[in-house]
Amino acid sequence: MAKNLNYVFLLDCYGELLTERQQQIAELYYNEDFSLSEIAEMQNITRQAVRDSLRHSENILSQTEEKLGMAKRISQMRFCLEQIVKNSESEQIAELARNGLALL
Amino acid sequence: MAKNLNYVFLLDCYGELLTERQQQIAELYYNEDFSLSEIAEMQNITRQAVRDSLRHSENILSQTEEKLGMAKRISQMRFCLEQIVKNSESEQIAELARNGLALL
Repeated sequence: MAKNLNYVFLLDCYGELLTERQQQIAELYYNEDFSLSEIAEMQNITRQAVRDSLRHSENILSQTEEKLGMAKRISQMRFCLEQIVKNSESEQIAELARNGLALL
Repeated sequence: MAKNLNYVFLLDCYGELLTERQQQIAELYYNEDFSLSEIAEMQNITRQAVRDSLRHSENILSQTEEKLGMAKRISQMRFCLEQIVKNSESEQIAELARNGLALL
């Protein structure tokens, strides 16, 4: 099972749509870098149950992104605001852009 | 049934999470300003069925916003970018901010 790092970002955007248990498992796998076997032991479930939970969560995250596209827009917005911070000669404008980045 | 205009914005953010039928009814009510009775006639269903569909859609939209908070963040981001467009003395920076607004 190859770890697709796109899910780190999708989990950040849409993780709250998962159940608490699904979130826990996905966080351990994607954000804390534990292996399937380690998570299975921590959660007292089988390695296959961890894999099934991750697959199910990944489907929910991908389908939500297909419908809403928020993750893609947030990524484009981040680039846009970073460009403003980098290129602005006005400290007031750079501060506004940094405030915008903090919202993402 | 009072029309809550917050749903116009939530429908714009999360409408794709509704079924096609729910979207149609919500669009007619919130974006095209038809009455419950008019929508019932157009969709060949009862006025009560229109009302139930809208209530159900509103619950989905509100619950998704409670979990993700994207609508609130988009609204804050819009304000932030509008301030940059308004206050920037550089045309290049204003253009970057307008590009950002187009993503919202």
